[in-house]
Amino acid sequence: MHICEVFNSFISVWSSKKRTMSQTSYYAVIFTSIKSPNADGYDRMSEELETLVVNQPGYLGHESARNEIGITVSYWKDLESIKNWKMNALHQTAQKTGRENWYQAYKIRICKVEREYGMGEI
Amino acid sequence: MHICEVFNSFISVWSSKKRTMSQTSYYAVIFTSIKSPNADGYDRMSEELETLVVNQPGYLGHESARNEIGITVSYWKDLESIKNWKMNALHQTAQKTGRENWYQAYKIRICKVEREYGMGEI
Repeated sequence: MHICEVFNSFISVWSSKKRTMSQTSYYAVIFTSIKSPNADGYDRMSEELETLVVNQPGYLGHESARNEIGITVSYWKDLESIKNWKMNALHQTAQKTGRENWYQAYKIRICKVEREYGMGEI
Repeated sequence: MHICEVFNSFISVWSSKKRTMSQTSYYAVIFTSIKSPNADGYDRMSEELETLVVNQPGYLGHESARNEIGITVSYWKDLESIKNWKMNALHQTAQKTGRENWYQAYKIRICKVEREYGMGEI
């Protein structure tokens, strides 16, 4: 391997693992839930909401994972954007069905992201 | 079924699905990560840290789930408690090995929880 390739490969690993840190100000909604054993219609509604939320004003992104507990964190420009998404008609239907059928329990936390740091692209 | 049993069963379902809402003020650390294909020693370290963190001053709880992405949210009384946990010796070792070996990428967000609501116990 030519020395330039070694150098480029080093730079590539370095930049993919580059650490960043910043003061910031936006909002996170942490949604934790335990699903009911029978959650008919949940997956279809999830897909519909995923399509819808990405075009919502103020939406910055979201991440999800589920084992025994499900955690979805969505990120928003401000509290107004979070409120507007909460009031969205299809989302209101999902919230109602969620309370009545899909979830044994859930918790929603509205948070102000004050600082963030990390490594690589996530 | 006696009328009292019907009533008690109704109360039991109602209280398990009771909705709560509150203004609040504590902190959440949202840790999202993508693991490297080879993460030797990760599970053992996770177990050790789990045992340690629950006795950390200011620790309020944590929740984890992992699919393609891993999300761990830990809850803390204040920023000082978060800083102290970050400086813990074993946790420092874990952070270093995490950056070098276990994670392709990760992001940590320090957040102030401003409001929360939910249903049932989670």
